[in-house]
Amino acid sequence: MNDFPAGMVWLVGAGPGDPELLTRKAERLIGAASVVFHDALVGPGVLALVPPGARLVHVGKRSGRHSKDQKTIDRLIVEAALAGERVVRLKGGDPSIFGRATEELEACRAAGVAVAICPGVTAASAAAAGIGRSLTLRGMARKLVFVTAHARAGEALDIDWQALADPQATLAIYMGKAAAPELSRQLLARGMPAENPVVLVENASLPDERHFRTRLDLLPIAARTALGSGPALLLVGHAMAPVGSSLRGHRDCGNPEAEAATPDCSASLAMTKTNAP
Amino acid sequence: MNDFPAGMVWLVGAGPGDPELLTRKAERLIGAASVVFHDALVGPGVLALVPPGARLVHVGKRSGRHSKDQKTIDRLIVEAALAGERVVRLKGGDPSIFGRATEELEACRAAGVAVAICPGVTAASAAAAGIGRSLTLRGMARKLVFVTAHARAGEALDIDWQALADPQATLAIYMGKAAAPELSRQLLARGMPAENPVVLVENASLPDERHFRTRLDLLPIAARTALGSGPALLLVGHAMAPVGSSLRGHRDCGNPEAEAATPDCSASLAMTKTNAP
Repeated sequence: MNDFPAGMVWLVGAGPGDPELLTRKAERLIGAASVVFHDALVGPGVLALVPPGARLVHVGKRSGRHSKDQKTIDRLIVEAALAGERVVRLKGGDPSIFGRATEELEACRAAGVAVAICPGVTAASAAAAGIGRSLTLRGMARKLVFVTAHARAGEALDIDWQALADPQATLAIYMGKAAAPELSRQLLARGMPAENPVVLVENASLPDERHFRTRLDLLPIAARTALGSGPALLLVGHAMAPVGSSLRGHRDCGNPEAEAATPDCSASLAMTKTNAP
Repeated sequence: MNDFPAGMVWLVGAGPGDPELLTRKAERLIGAASVVFHDALVGPGVLALVPPGARLVHVGKRSGRHSKDQKTIDRLIVEAALAGERVVRLKGGDPSIFGRATEELEACRAAGVAVAICPGVTAASAAAAGIGRSLTLRGMARKLVFVTAHARAGEALDIDWQALADPQATLAIYMGKAAAPELSRQLLARGMPAENPVVLVENASLPDERHFRTRLDLLPIAARTALGSGPALLLVGHAMAPVGSSLRGHRDCGNPEAEAATPDCSASLAMTKTNAP
């Protein structure tokens, strides 16, 4: 395979979780790998595509539980490449969006190891597809802002809240569950209206994907009561308003304790989660 | 196929252009379609996957040349679905990011037509992969902002420039070629430094992909002299700075007239464009 010689590293976007949302190129690279280093967020459906002869190494990091630190991961992939392996470094979503790709690219380049990126579908795109909505609206939501609201333990969120409180933007907040109370408070303090629509999407693209509709002032309660332990994305802004038939009138399928959140289970949503053979 | 009955519409992300960057799900849906309505930006490699028995309808819009207006497209896809077809509406990139998905979703829902979205790899992810860079940097570029700088003829760009002039953000400007002079002027006027790094990526993921490195004050010249007629994405911010070896020292492969732009053709970049069988 001329774009994947022995001794090379590919940083591969695994997409949001559904193995059907992997790119054809990612599938090919995984199939050609001799070793695959993967994150905690890469699901079993994707890992099932790793060929039986290849080594599978879990180097996952989850909030608060760093099973391997970044420098160790950098060292492992470089060592494998220098040993002549075909290395796939499999990352949830897209490697270039909150994926710590820079550290691994630079470690490879410093060691003279050829490295390249295979892009993937990012979680915000999958969440939007899951709820059947566009993230941008012509004339109303012309800007889309991705932020990560994950701080290391004990650290404050270092975010320019004023720049985020933009009525023309849709905010997609990655890893935002723990930060929901601060997010709500800070955006309200900067003049965002209390009724600003928010949709929480947990486990986007996976069989246990769930959506909850709420508003900015009720977001802290919704995040606390409605979400499980899966990764969650928060979508904030006009583009999430309940227009048309997309997010209305389906209050009968969710967590009854979630007073602040409206579970959503319309037919078109359920349909996007069906994986045909 | 239980998620694609006759009479249904799928809005399918075709990704950035390289048919290998289509998702496995998009490939399956295209293969099951009886009619495919596609944009101008969906490349021939992707269209080649449409089965021989399916009808292929070009409804493309390009800047200034609207071959079919949005209402006509809405009507065509609804009529096809009501006639019992399996309809794929194929859009460049991700349907939820600057893809006018809302109009088509609402038209389908108003007509009682089942509709769902299959997400795709957006152009910014492909551009980042092409130049071998991350769009976000831990601690330095924690925010990623997508804007479209495409205005209808005679209309001014309706953009909150102050919110965009954010030193912590990476800006990914879609359809930004024509707007490059205004973009440069407005961001400089709001205090962004003249040497702020900019990378222009034309035809991301396609065989004729090209990259040019410049700086904010020289961006208007670079956009005018370096780019061809393909769709271009502008990436602005610290994350595009020439650190490491990724974008340095390759000045010998581009357009000699492009004084303001540094063409980039490092080995790792060329590698990402190789499509093995």
